[in-house]
Amino acid sequence: MEDFKNIFVLGIGLIGGSMARDLKRVLPESTLYGIDSSENHLSEAVGLGVIDHSSRFEALSQADLVILSIPVDQANLFLPPVLDAISEHALVIDVGSTKGSVCDAVRNHPKRANFLAAHPIAGTEFSGPTAAIEYLFKDKTMILCEVEDTDTELLKKAMQLFEVLEMRIRYMNPHSHDKHIAYVSHLSHISSFMLGKTVIEKEKNEKDIFDMAGSGFASTVRLAKSNPATWTPIFKENKANVLESLTEYITNLTHFKNVLEADDYEEVYNEMENTNHIKSILKGLS
Amino acid sequence: MEDFKNIFVLGIGLIGGSMARDLKRVLPESTLYGIDSSENHLSEAVGLGVIDHSSRFEALSQADLVILSIPVDQANLFLPPVLDAISEHALVIDVGSTKGSVCDAVRNHPKRANFLAAHPIAGTEFSGPTAAIEYLFKDKTMILCEVEDTDTELLKKAMQLFEVLEMRIRYMNPHSHDKHIAYVSHLSHISSFMLGKTVIEKEKNEKDIFDMAGSGFASTVRLAKSNPATWTPIFKENKANVLESLTEYITNLTHFKNVLEADDYEEVYNEMENTNHIKSILKGLS
Repeated sequence: MEDFKNIFVLGIGLIGGSMARDLKRVLPESTLYGIDSSENHLSEAVGLGVIDHSSRFEALSQADLVILSIPVDQANLFLPPVLDAISEHALVIDVGSTKGSVCDAVRNHPKRANFLAAHPIAGTEFSGPTAAIEYLFKDKTMILCEVEDTDTELLKKAMQLFEVLEMRIRYMNPHSHDKHIAYVSHLSHISSFMLGKTVIEKEKNEKDIFDMAGSGFASTVRLAKSNPATWTPIFKENKANVLESLTEYITNLTHFKNVLEADDYEEVYNEMENTNHIKSILKGLS
Repeated sequence: MEDFKNIFVLGIGLIGGSMARDLKRVLPESTLYGIDSSENHLSEAVGLGVIDHSSRFEALSQADLVILSIPVDQANLFLPPVLDAISEHALVIDVGSTKGSVCDAVRNHPKRANFLAAHPIAGTEFSGPTAAIEYLFKDKTMILCEVEDTDTELLKKAMQLFEVLEMRIRYMNPHSHDKHIAYVSHLSHISSFMLGKTVIEKEKNEKDIFDMAGSGFASTVRLAKSNPATWTPIFKENKANVLESLTEYITNLTHFKNVLEADDYEEVYNEMENTNHIKSILKGLS
């Protein structure tokens, strides 16, 4: 892991920037280079100390480690040329929220062994280099896909790194990952965005409605602050699974509506009680 | 406000218990009596110091102040006999989450002036006397309905109390309250319960799904820990408004599903961007 001298982070947003801050902390001898399509983000990231220097795609041959933290549709496009550009000893880790298409994109790439598909289950509703924070990944789950296709030595170094960052490791098939994550992450974002929309639409005619909002509403609608530029590609790449989870969610809401409409309060009660054990399931998550 | 010597709290749960704790703190000379249908809750509340003594309905004639904090359908039933039972100088404050039916229930009651209809926008997802915490109401909004029907002197004392508790006061028509609160509170609970249900159903077949849940899911699903015994009556009493908000929510989710299904990613993006300004609306709420 100490071999990671020159670290390049492609995409200096919430995830890439937070990763850069942590890498700098645990590998103080390394130099952190940032590459981003936004010049503003790059100069902001240098100013904030998130990265040491801004850099360019052409310099990737110098990299020992590359973190790919760009929108997931871009990751599918950029990962093959990134692998083309790096040296034989370098490791590329993609940290996007969908894993199927990015794994498929490099399945037969000659440098497939230099790639590790990862998804850190960590984040906030904020975005850009100013959202980058230290210790974002501590005690969080890191999902790794198709580790059998990554070079053993490079994988070992990556695992050392995740251990120093105090992450829990889970191994998954990339398409299982995408199916599951649609339920426990992607659907939450849609439910939150559409809840926000419903209340905002109502508020156009009812001016004092937000005076009445409490911490419950704030919690449920928090993810509606998330960046559409991040989330549109996620919904696109994971379309089938997201549609499946969304359809089930709408079915459940419609059932709840129907039993309430029918004054079946025993069933209204049961619907909630049967979900109450989410308490124990979520223990430890906050 | 110092005249509130004997304070009776009917319903020693999250809201009633927290109110009891705060009243004891700001009125240390007063005696706090609890009345509850659950003997367990009463002895628990005495043990925890939430109330000084457990008491009974028959003792209400001794009360200077009564806090009615029982499920909203029960409040409609119990408020008239509570008003019958109290002395001429006592004040009864109902703190339930729906206000229309409880106001209607005592509109022509001879002691209507002894009643104040209130809704503190405060709470957590927990319930029972153990959930009662101090300072729950500090910096929160207190909605008051039909204050013109409350005796001027009693209202003045109540206002002094809310000021000491550091609450913000808003005045509303009870039926407007119920319409608005359906959007900013009741709907959030349904969205959260049904999100929990959708994921739990999926998890029956997919054992490791919750390993993948992060803080975003936890936040969105937090309200699904709420007590069905509290929330079933709320949905019952506010049925028409809840159904209206739920129908609009389902319509918005279905529209999102349709544009995603049609690969209209510009519209998917716009749907999220148009809701993003919830950021500024929610400023200060957490």
